[in-house]
Amino acid sequence: MRIKFETDYQEGASPEILERLISTNLEQTSGYGEDSHCSRAKELIRREIGRPESAVYFMAGGTQTNTTVIKHLLSPCEGVIAASTGHINVHESGAIESTGHKVLTLPSHDGLLDAEDLRRYMEAFTADPTNEHMVQPGLVYVSYSSELGTVYTKSQLTEIRRVCDDYGLKLFADGARLGTGLTSSASDIAMNDIAELCDAFYIGGTKNGALLGEAVVFPNPERVNLRHFTTIIKQQGGLLAKGRLLGIQFEVLFEDGLFYRNAEHANIQAMKIKRAFSEHNIPFLIDSPTNQQFPILSRQQNEKLSQKFSYESWQPLSDGRLAVRFCTSWATTDDNINELIQAINQL
Amino acid sequence: MRIKFETDYQEGASPEILERLISTNLEQTSGYGEDSHCSRAKELIRREIGRPESAVYFMAGGTQTNTTVIKHLLSPCEGVIAASTGHINVHESGAIESTGHKVLTLPSHDGLLDAEDLRRYMEAFTADPTNEHMVQPGLVYVSYSSELGTVYTKSQLTEIRRVCDDYGLKLFADGARLGTGLTSSASDIAMNDIAELCDAFYIGGTKNGALLGEAVVFPNPERVNLRHFTTIIKQQGGLLAKGRLLGIQFEVLFEDGLFYRNAEHANIQAMKIKRAFSEHNIPFLIDSPTNQQFPILSRQQNEKLSQKFSYESWQPLSDGRLAVRFCTSWATTDDNINELIQAINQL
Amino acid sequence: MRIKFETDYQEGASPEILERLISTNLEQTSGYGEDSHCSRAKELIRREIGRPESAVYFMAGGTQTNTTVIKHLLSPCEGVIAASTGHINVHESGAIESTGHKVLTLPSHDGLLDAEDLRRYMEAFTADPTNEHMVQPGLVYVSYSSELGTVYTKSQLTEIRRVCDDYGLKLFADGARLGTGLTSSASDIAMNDIAELCDAFYIGGTKNGALLGEAVVFPNPERVNLRHFTTIIKQQGGLLAKGRLLGIQFEVLFEDGLFYRNAEHANIQAMKIKRAFSEHNIPFLIDSPTNQQFPILSRQQNEKLSQKFSYESWQPLSDGRLAVRFCTSWATTDDNINELIQAINQL
Amino acid sequence: MRIKFETDYQEGASPEILERLISTNLEQTSGYGEDSHCSRAKELIRREIGRPESAVYFMAGGTQTNTTVIKHLLSPCEGVIAASTGHINVHESGAIESTGHKVLTLPSHDGLLDAEDLRRYMEAFTADPTNEHMVQPGLVYVSYSSELGTVYTKSQLTEIRRVCDDYGLKLFADGARLGTGLTSSASDIAMNDIAELCDAFYIGGTKNGALLGEAVVFPNPERVNLRHFTTIIKQQGGLLAKGRLLGIQFEVLFEDGLFYRNAEHANIQAMKIKRAFSEHNIPFLIDSPTNQQFPILSRQQNEKLSQKFSYESWQPLSDGRLAVRFCTSWATTDDNINELIQAINQL
Repeated sequence: MRIKFETDYQEGASPEILERLISTNLEQTSGYGEDSHCSRAKELIRREIGRPESAVYFMAGGTQTNTTVIKHLLSPCEGVIAASTGHINVHESGAIESTGHKVLTLPSHDGLLDAEDLRRYMEAFTADPTNEHMVQPGLVYVSYSSELGTVYTKSQLTEIRRVCDDYGLKLFADGARLGTGLTSSASDIAMNDIAELCDAFYIGGTKNGALLGEAVVFPNPERVNLRHFTTIIKQQGGLLAKGRLLGIQFEVLFEDGLFYRNAEHANIQAMKIKRAFSEHNIPFLIDSPTNQQFPILSRQQNEKLSQKFSYESWQPLSDGRLAVRFCTSWATTDDNINELIQAINQL
Repeated sequence: MRIKFETDYQEGASPEILERLISTNLEQTSGYGEDSHCSRAKELIRREIGRPESAVYFMAGGTQTNTTVIKHLLSPCEGVIAASTGHINVHESGAIESTGHKVLTLPSHDGLLDAEDLRRYMEAFTADPTNEHMVQPGLVYVSYSSELGTVYTKSQLTEIRRVCDDYGLKLFADGARLGTGLTSSASDIAMNDIAELCDAFYIGGTKNGALLGEAVVFPNPERVNLRHFTTIIKQQGGLLAKGRLLGIQFEVLFEDGLFYRNAEHANIQAMKIKRAFSEHNIPFLIDSPTNQQFPILSRQQNEKLSQKFSYESWQPLSDGRLAVRFCTSWATTDDNINELIQAINQL
Repeated sequence: MRIKFETDYQEGASPEILERLISTNLEQTSGYGEDSHCSRAKELIRREIGRPESAVYFMAGGTQTNTTVIKHLLSPCEGVIAASTGHINVHESGAIESTGHKVLTLPSHDGLLDAEDLRRYMEAFTADPTNEHMVQPGLVYVSYSSELGTVYTKSQLTEIRRVCDDYGLKLFADGARLGTGLTSSASDIAMNDIAELCDAFYIGGTKNGALLGEAVVFPNPERVNLRHFTTIIKQQGGLLAKGRLLGIQFEVLFEDGLFYRNAEHANIQAMKIKRAFSEHNIPFLIDSPTNQQFPILSRQQNEKLSQKFSYESWQPLSDGRLAVRFCTSWATTDDNINELIQAINQL
Repeated sequence: MRIKFETDYQEGASPEILERLISTNLEQTSGYGEDSHCSRAKELIRREIGRPESAVYFMAGGTQTNTTVIKHLLSPCEGVIAASTGHINVHESGAIESTGHKVLTLPSHDGLLDAEDLRRYMEAFTADPTNEHMVQPGLVYVSYSSELGTVYTKSQLTEIRRVCDDYGLKLFADGARLGTGLTSSASDIAMNDIAELCDAFYIGGTKNGALLGEAVVFPNPERVNLRHFTTIIKQQGGLLAKGRLLGIQFEVLFEDGLFYRNAEHANIQAMKIKRAFSEHNIPFLIDSPTNQQFPILSRQQNEKLSQKFSYESWQPLSDGRLAVRFCTSWATTDDNINELIQAINQL
C-alpha cells in the first residue's frame, strides 16, 4: 500500500469532530439546519469575521456551493468571470452552465486573476457596440487559496474589488481551501478582509478536517436579497435533512481555532516537502505557499517515487518531464512526511 | 424541552455507523467514491437484490437524488408523471423544473398512483392530436413508502409497470423511506421486486439511521446509458469529495441487516402510537402501515398533546380539527413512546 | 378541399401589411429592431395605451413571448400561477419549465382564473410552515381572450390585481388574442385598462392579421428592470435580424385602427356561427363571446359537417358527443360563413 | 442618409418572395408547418442535396436554430466545441448555456476550427484522469461561411469529420451564410458535401434574401432520434403558427436556384469592394472570399469613408487603425458599389 499524498480529502475527520458527533448523537433536533448547533456555528463564524449582520448557510460540498451561490447572484443573461484555471471552469462538469450561466474566462496567472486583465476586459466589453448580444458580466469568481495553491495579496484582491465596483460586478471567493490560504506565510489577509472585500465567500470544511461541509457567508445580506436563499439551496439539492451534521462540525472547527490549526498543520507539512524537493534541485511548476506542491519530475524520478507514494499527475511538459501534485492536510503525519523526504533525498 | 416526533431525521446516526467512522477514520482512500468501502457497499447492495449486473451510486440527499436521476432519465422535452402529493411535485422547491422538466400530475390515492389513472392519462395523451405541442411523458415517479406512509402492493406496482411498458415509459421509485416500506406488515414486496419492476430506485439512508446518504440503483444499466452518470452527479453537485462517508455507512447498513432492523424498529414504534390513538377512538387521515402516522386531533387534543410533544401540523380540516403527523425512526425510544401513549390515554 | 375554420392563423396577412412590406422593401435599415419602423410602431402603441413611459418590444411568436417575459419576471425559485387550461401549462411543450420555472395551476373557470381561488391559494401557501421547501409564487398569468374564448370583466381583473398586490405577485396577460378580447361585446375593458392592471402584457399580431409578431408591453418599466431585456430576448432566440419585419406590421396595425378592425371582423363572423348553431339548438361547451366557438356535435352532425368543413376536435364528452372548435379571423369571408350557416341549417 | 454596408439583413426580401407571399396570401393552410408549401420546400431541399431520406425543419432565426439543434444533439453533461470566434460563443447572449450546455473553445484560425487542434484537444481530454469531472465533448460546431467570411476546404472539413468519428463526436454546421460560402470562388464544397459530412446543418434564409427563416437539415435522421424534434422546436419557442411563411420562402429560394443567385450576387459585389481596397493598398484583417470584407482603415480613412457610408467597426488595432466590416447581400446595388469604389479611390 502506497502512502497517499493525492488530495486533502483522503482521510476522515478531525477526531474532535467525530467525538462531538458521538456526544450529540441522540439529541433530538429539527431538520434542515434549524437546530441549535447550526445557530451556534453561524454565531461563531459571524464573530470570527466581526460582522454580526452577516448571513451564514451550510452546504455539503464545493461544487454545490459554487453553483448555488453563483445561480443566486446572477440574473438570467449574466455570466461569471473566472480565471481559465478556475474550478468552476474546469472541474465541475459544467455545473454553472447547467444553471444557464456562462463562465467567462480570463488568463490565469498561476491560478490567480489579474485586476488589470479584468479592467481591460470590462473596458472592451463596455466599448463593444454589440455587447447587447453578449453574456453580461455580473460576477467575478476567485479562489483562495487557488487551484494552484497560490494566494492573492490584500492589495491584489482590493484592486479586483475596485474594478468590480467600477463596473457594477459582484465578487465571490471560493474558499474550499480558505484555511490553508489564510494560514499561509505568503498571506497578508485575514478572514475579515475576505468578508470586507467579497459579496459572498465560503469557508471550506471538507478539505480542512470536516467529513463534509462548506459554510457560505454573505457579509452584507441586504445587498444580495437572501429572502428565498434557503429555497434555492433546496432547489439545488443542497439542503441536508440532518443539517446539524454541518452545524456540529463548524461548531467544533470554530469554537477554539481548530479550523486554523488544521490548515496550519497542512501548510507546515507541505513546506517540508517543498524544502526537500528544493534542496534536491527539483524545480516547481508554481511557487505555492500552501498545502499543494507541484514539483516537476523526470521520468526516472517519477517512477522511483511512485513506487512508494501516490500523488496526482498534473501536467505533462513538452520535454517529457511531468509536473505532479503532492497534497497535504490536517491528517498528514510526520512519519509519512519523513518517509517521503527520505525518498526524495534518494532520487 | 418537548419530545420530538417531528421527522425521521431528528437524531444522528446508528451507533454502529459512528463506530465504523471512527475505526476507519485514518485510512487513506481516494476521493469521490473511488474507495474500497464504496466498492464493498455496492457489492452488498447488488447481492441484496440478487442482481450482480446492477449499477449502484451514492448521493447525499433525497432531492439531489431525485433531481439527478430524473434529469438523467428524461430527454429535454419529456416530463415525469407523479401523484399530486409526490415529493418532487410539492416539497423540492421546483428542483425538477430547475433542470428543465415538467412534473405531470395525476390524482393521489392516499399518496399512491393508480395504474388505471395512468393508463387513461396515456390513452388520452396518445389520442390527442395536439400532443406534439405538449410535454412528452417519459417517466413515472412513485415513492415507496409514500409521503403519506402508504405502500403499493406487488400487484399494484406490477400493474403500473405494465402501463409503463405499454407506453414506453420508464419507472423510478423514490425510496427515501424504502426501509419502512419494505418492512411494513402491509408490504408483500421485497427489494428485489422493486429492482425487477423499476428502471431506477434509491435506498434511503438519511431517514433510516445514516448521517446522510442515498444509494441509487439501476437494476438494468444497459437500458439507461450510464456512461457519464458520475459526471451528471458531479454537475448536480452530488459527488462528495469524501465519498467514503457514504460507502462506509451503507456497508454498515447492509452487512448484517441493520438497514432492515432500523426500519422495523421505526415501524414497531409507529404501530404502538397507532394503536394508542385507535384505542382512544381518534381517527386517522390515512391508514398508514409505516412509520408516519396521521391522527386527526381536535383543537383541545392538539393543545394538550403539543405541550409535551412536538409533531408536524399536516392539514387543517374544514371542521376545525387538525390532521397531524407523528414520525418514528430507528432512534425512537421505548421511553418516549410510553410517555406519548400515556398522554394519548389521558386525552 | 374543405373550408377551414381550424384556427385564426390559417391565412397570410392583411393586404395592407403586405403592401407596406413591398413599399418598404428596399429601404436600408439597421437590424435587430433598431430601425425607424420599430420606433414608430412602439410610439403608436404607447400612444394607444396612453402611457408614453411604457416599454415595447417585438417578438416573433406567442410561446417565445410567454417564455421570455416569464423568465424575465421570475427569480430562480419562483413559479408562475396559471389556470390549468392556460396555454403555458398545456400547449407550449414545457417551454416555461425549460427555463427552470414551475407552472403552479389553479382551477380553470371556462378558461379564466378566479380571484378568490387565487387568494385562498396564497393564504394557504403563506400559512404553510413548509413553504420554504416549495416553489415560491411570483407571477400570475392570465390570457385575454382566454384559450376558451372567454374574457375577464374589468372588475374580475381588478380583483386579481388586488390579490397580486396583497401578496407581492406580478401580473402578466397573454394577449395572443387580445384583439378579439378587447373588441368582444362582452368586454368592458380597453387596452389601457390592461396596461394599468398588468406588469406586462402582449398584443398578438399573428392571430390578428400579421404574418407573425407579438408586441410585448411593460407599462411601468421602472418596476421590472429592463436594462438587459434585449439580451434576454436574444438569449431566448427571439431577436429577429430583420426586426423591421415586426415593426412594419405593427405600424400598419396601429396607425389607423386595423388591429381593431381585424379583430372585430373575426368576432362578427364568429357571432354568425354562434347564432346559427344556437338557432339549431346545438349547445356549446362554453359561452364564448369571441372568435372561438365550441359547439357540441353529435356523431352524425360531426360527420356531416366535417365533409365540407374542417375544424378542431376539442374534447370528447362521455356521452359520445364531441365538443369542437370553430375559429374565425380577420380573413374569414362572408361566402365561407354563408356556406357554413347553410350546412348548419341542414343538420 | 448614409449608404449602408452594415449587414446582410438590412433590406427586406427578394421580390420573388414577396410576390409569392401575395399570390398565396388567402390560401387556407394548417398551421405549424403542416402545409403543402412547407412540404414542397422540404422536398426541394432534399432533392438539392440528393438525400431523399433526410429530415428538414424550418425555424425563424439563427440563434434559435443553433440553440435548438445543439440542445437536441447533446445530453445534459455534454458540451459543444467551437472556435473561440464562433457565433454561439460570442454573439448569442449565452443561448447555448441557457439550455445547460458549455461551449468549449478552441483557437480560431481566421474564423475556422483546425482539425489538428481538435484532435489534440480530444487526445488530451481522453488522457486526462480527471475527465469524469469535466464537461464531456459531444458535438463540434463549425460555421460555413464563418463569422469572418472564410470557408473550409473539403479536405479541411473532411479531416474534422474524421476526428469526430475517431472520438464519437457529432458535427453541426451553422449555415446562416451557407449561400455565400458555397458560391464563393474559394469553395470546393457543394451542399451535398456538407450533408455528407455533417450530422446536422442549416441553410440560412435571413441573410440570403428571405424575410426570415433557416432550414435545418438532418441528413441521417436515424442517427439523431428526431421523434420529438418538433416538440423541442416548440419548447424553444421556434415553431411559427403561420409556418407556411417559412415554407413559401424556401420554396421560392430553391425552385429555380434563387438561393444561389442571391448569394453569388452578394459575393460578386463584395469582390468589387475587395478589389478597390486592394488596389488602393489598404490591407485586410482577413483574406475573405465571401460577402464580408474586413479592410483595415487609418483614422483619416475611416473618418472620410464614414461620412457617406455606414459599416461595422470590427476591431481596433493597437497602432490606432481600425479593422471594419463591409457587408454585401442579394440587395446590394451596383450604384451603391460604384459610389463606394469612387470614395475608396479618393482616400
